[in-house]
Amino acid sequence: MVVFVRQFVTEISVRYGETDQMGVAHHSSYLLWFELGRTGLLREAGHAYRDIEQGGNLLPVVEYACKIRIGAKYDDVVRIETAVETLKSRTLTFSYKVKRENKLLATAWTKHLCVDRDNNIRRIPPEIAEAIVPYLVSPG
Amino acid sequence: MVVFVRQFVTEISVRYGETDQMGVAHHSSYLLWFELGRTGLLREAGHAYRDIEQGGNLLPVVEYACKIRIGAKYDDVVRIETAVETLKSRTLTFSYKVKRENKLLATAWTKHLCVDRDNNIRRIPPEIAEAIVPYLVSPG
Amino acid sequence: MVVFVRQFVTEISVRYGETDQMGVAHHSSYLLWFELGRTGLLREAGHAYRDIEQGGNLLPVVEYACKIRIGAKYDDVVRIETAVETLKSRTLTFSYKVKRENKLLATAWTKHLCVDRDNNIRRIPPEIAEAIVPYLVSPG
Amino acid sequence: MVVFVRQFVTEISVRYGETDQMGVAHHSSYLLWFELGRTGLLREAGHAYRDIEQGGNLLPVVEYACKIRIGAKYDDVVRIETAVETLKSRTLTFSYKVKRENKLLATAWTKHLCVDRDNNIRRIPPEIAEAIVPYLVSPG
Repeated sequence: MVVFVRQFVTEISVRYGETDQMGVAHHSSYLLWFELGRTGLLREAGHAYRDIEQGGNLLPVVEYACKIRIGAKYDDVVRIETAVETLKSRTLTFSYKVKRENKLLATAWTKHLCVDRDNNIRRIPPEIAEAIVPYLVSPG
Repeated sequence: MVVFVRQFVTEISVRYGETDQMGVAHHSSYLLWFELGRTGLLREAGHAYRDIEQGGNLLPVVEYACKIRIGAKYDDVVRIETAVETLKSRTLTFSYKVKRENKLLATAWTKHLCVDRDNNIRRIPPEIAEAIVPYLVSPG
Repeated sequence: MVVFVRQFVTEISVRYGETDQMGVAHHSSYLLWFELGRTGLLREAGHAYRDIEQGGNLLPVVEYACKIRIGAKYDDVVRIETAVETLKSRTLTFSYKVKRENKLLATAWTKHLCVDRDNNIRRIPPEIAEAIVPYLVSPG
Repeated sequence: MVVFVRQFVTEISVRYGETDQMGVAHHSSYLLWFELGRTGLLREAGHAYRDIEQGGNLLPVVEYACKIRIGAKYDDVVRIETAVETLKSRTLTFSYKVKRENKLLATAWTKHLCVDRDNNIRRIPPEIAEAIVPYLVSPG
């Protein structure tokens, strides 16, 4: 597994509405938690995603994958660790670890494409790319 | 209870992800079903909401209420009946009944305000108001 | 408006996935935030809802209402204030205020019925009822 | 790309609440649509998932991946094609294609582990495995 040299860490409480009748958080809920992770990382790096969008750049998710080892439960306090797996001129991949008391519950990544409001592909603005370089993971 | 003289009817299957650990559809899921109801009613009335928005009018939900008598379960086929409860110059209230095999599971209403893209209050365009008049409910 | 004498306060960040194409938090998202509010209130009162459920008592939402005055936006830090509006032998109503920097965005309430695992109506366990009495609102 | 020899096909309308402020269906929504796909496939194969669960077998999602080529929009009628990618003694992978008027919007897969109510790993009941064999994909 890749090593997160520098990461953004945030904690969430699993909401009741995020569970399903198996009694664990529905697998789609994790994707909402990852949004909090990358939103936080970008803000910490000095470029709030809200501002990136207002600047005319969007970073839609074009691909994602998630592996759940242990299900998170209602009211669990879950820790989301976020780093940057790959940075290319026009795409960006975030990597995530979900933990509960240092036990690894899930791993995931989301790949984003930089586009403008009219959905034309763009280069990631260099100041944003530079700001997130410190969060690049190392091979394990 | 009000009588639905003319109504739009649609059916949905309860999704697994809409359940929670009580084993019934989470109470927030109903709001998503109601969207299908009023989207269908408006389209049947000749004014698809997609087109209303593209014409510069938005109908955000400003108030809602829902009463659940019997919980809907995973894979239940649920029938959503939608009518118009109140029509005013700038607001509009839809009324909903949720049924499973003619058993009433829930009732609800959503109130919408007509605004433009900049969130300024507007009159509901008269052609839309006229088109939905036939869906107005009668006092029970 | 009722006065919250004692309340539980929690803050959330609006998630991207909670927005809709109007650019504000979808009206169903508020219901998920309210869950965090009452979960927190109950835990603060000494009866985590997780434990209440494990003790065989469920508190499903049987009715709810919400009034949105100003839409919450992506990445907004939103404050949820929760108190108890009504306490009866078998039902319980929570009241909520949603604020952003002391501006009132929305008000709401959710009514809960106490049932057992087989959906039989029960009295709210007295120790729980007593513990939440301090959170009862005053008439405004 | 793999060829779907036999598949289950279902159609959904994209709900307003499934969109986000980019104006397309949020990437997590697709996972809910896939549930409808595999629920339908299993029912068509003679083993409704509801019955499988009541028989004491659960098929939680332990891994998933999705690639979005074109975003689905509000009110789009979207076609979900579901087949079985891999069938092993204790795991099962469904494969999905999302289309709008024969244009491919997204591809995905979900991997499921067979467990009992106490989360012990189990063999997939042979009658279920046999029933879904006809839905196995062919290499492209």
